[in-house]
Amino acid sequence: MRPGKRDVIVSEVGPRDGLQSIKRTMPTATKIEWIKALAEAGLSEIEVGSFVSPKLLPQMADCGELVAATRDLQDLTVLALVPNLRGAQAAFDVGTPKITMPVSASQAHSKANINRTVEEAVEDVARVNELRNSLSGDYRPGVEIGISTAFGCTMEGNVSEDWVIELAVKLAAAGADSVGLSDTTGYGNPAQVKRLFTRLRSELGEKAGGAHFHNTRGQGLANVVAALEVGVTTFDSSQAGLGGCPYAPGATGNIVTEDLVFMLESMGLKTGVDIDKLVSARPIILSGLPGENLYGHVQDAGLPKGFQYA
Amino acid sequence: MRPGKRDVIVSEVGPRDGLQSIKRTMPTATKIEWIKALAEAGLSEIEVGSFVSPKLLPQMADCGELVAATRDLQDLTVLALVPNLRGAQAAFDVGTPKITMPVSASQAHSKANINRTVEEAVEDVARVNELRNSLSGDYRPGVEIGISTAFGCTMEGNVSEDWVIELAVKLAAAGADSVGLSDTTGYGNPAQVKRLFTRLRSELGEKAGGAHFHNTRGQGLANVVAALEVGVTTFDSSQAGLGGCPYAPGATGNIVTEDLVFMLESMGLKTGVDIDKLVSARPIILSGLPGENLYGHVQDAGLPKGFQYA
Repeated sequence: MRPGKRDVIVSEVGPRDGLQSIKRTMPTATKIEWIKALAEAGLSEIEVGSFVSPKLLPQMADCGELVAATRDLQDLTVLALVPNLRGAQAAFDVGTPKITMPVSASQAHSKANINRTVEEAVEDVARVNELRNSLSGDYRPGVEIGISTAFGCTMEGNVSEDWVIELAVKLAAAGADSVGLSDTTGYGNPAQVKRLFTRLRSELGEKAGGAHFHNTRGQGLANVVAALEVGVTTFDSSQAGLGGCPYAPGATGNIVTEDLVFMLESMGLKTGVDIDKLVSARPIILSGLPGENLYGHVQDAGLPKGFQYA
Repeated sequence: MRPGKRDVIVSEVGPRDGLQSIKRTMPTATKIEWIKALAEAGLSEIEVGSFVSPKLLPQMADCGELVAATRDLQDLTVLALVPNLRGAQAAFDVGTPKITMPVSASQAHSKANINRTVEEAVEDVARVNELRNSLSGDYRPGVEIGISTAFGCTMEGNVSEDWVIELAVKLAAAGADSVGLSDTTGYGNPAQVKRLFTRLRSELGEKAGGAHFHNTRGQGLANVVAALEVGVTTFDSSQAGLGGCPYAPGATGNIVTEDLVFMLESMGLKTGVDIDKLVSARPIILSGLPGENLYGHVQDAGLPKGFQYA
């Protein structure tokens, strides 16, 4: 692992966001091998799974095991997604270091995704915060929120920017440690990214969270550049862009970790991540999900002659 | 075609940069059909081919025919690439409205690409300018330069930024109307793009040209955002990212016109281009080059619900 302070945190979401959008289940042992390889490559945050009903997402049923197997890895913060209070309880029961809760800006998406109105989801965050505060001993897990559909909704279309910021303020008041913005639908554009993150940081200060971009329309890294311009320093991404939409072969899922790290390091921003080690971890995915589509450019094009890490 | 002033010029280079990197030759009639469809979609600049030895690039042998067939299309500026004085003469002989000459910042690339030193290439630009000035009548073609390997060279590695700017100044002095910067190798990063174009615009003023980015490492649109930040308003791109490197399936060639136009319009920047018409032109490519790899995202993902042009 490359030493030194990181300028940007690359938060790997492949084991959660990538795998949850693939119908097949990667074997637990393969997931653990993959997560360990990602940590070994220098990633300091990995979202390992989701504490959600195994009836809804059987691919995520082993989340507790994954947390137990990886939470003590050195220099790694293990995250898990929780959709509600029950998920938070399950996460806290196994000592998950940090949870992330999605709260939709769009009512239609909120109903479809977690069967709750947006207002009910905000109340859930407050309850999760109370639960966290009631934990005994030294265990104090982090609670971060990602506002889903913050850049637009496939059902509702445009989402009001004023409302997104109002919602972020409510969520911070409900006790979240940080509130980030997610382009769940791949609708976001760089101008919108600059506007929304500027306001988020101005309204929330220290509680302003990171960016979760998809590359659905090829604009993922462009949105990262826009977010960097206004001071965002945490970005979710997925190794090999795992979880690309099966109905749209070119329309990949999350932004690709390999390409993101290459871009950031080229720009002089330390990520702590070793690109060669990262690329070496790609075959592990295929060992658990034979024939799965993997995305990205850097693994094929290689690093430029004369390339130097930041 | 969508009316109104353009905020950004998208300069289509697929018929030249895309096709020249594919070994097979697209039939001339198909090229003309494709170029007309691109113009109909609202593209106001199209680089239709290259006046280069047909022994070197037989795919480009019909450049004169293409210019003759397309130069009078309404609202379209037809460009052709010329590598040297002989090419310029051929271009002027058929009344090409605008030529673009590549001049490498790297000596090794210059020798490999046009078998000239960089200094000899600068002299060629001066000779081409003299030739242009000697033309009689109303015909006064544009002469623009793209500095190749401005962001790095696969043979030499890093290229000095001071040298790139010095070269740009020499080329402007040699009589070019504008001097742009090309990331021929897909080495560029957004921080470097901002630095170089800031200096180019400061040194060259009105003669500072556009950006030609490749998407070799997935960073193409990110580099566009960086260039927009410092005032660049002309971008080369290729429909369907045509000409992706055959040795690296994920490593596409030029940035994809469809995705670029989507991003710019989403940002509120008028391009004059209709994305649906553009997407409708993709099958023409396959009719002339069956089975060719086409790239891009927007054609698969579709436009966002509620999407509006700038």
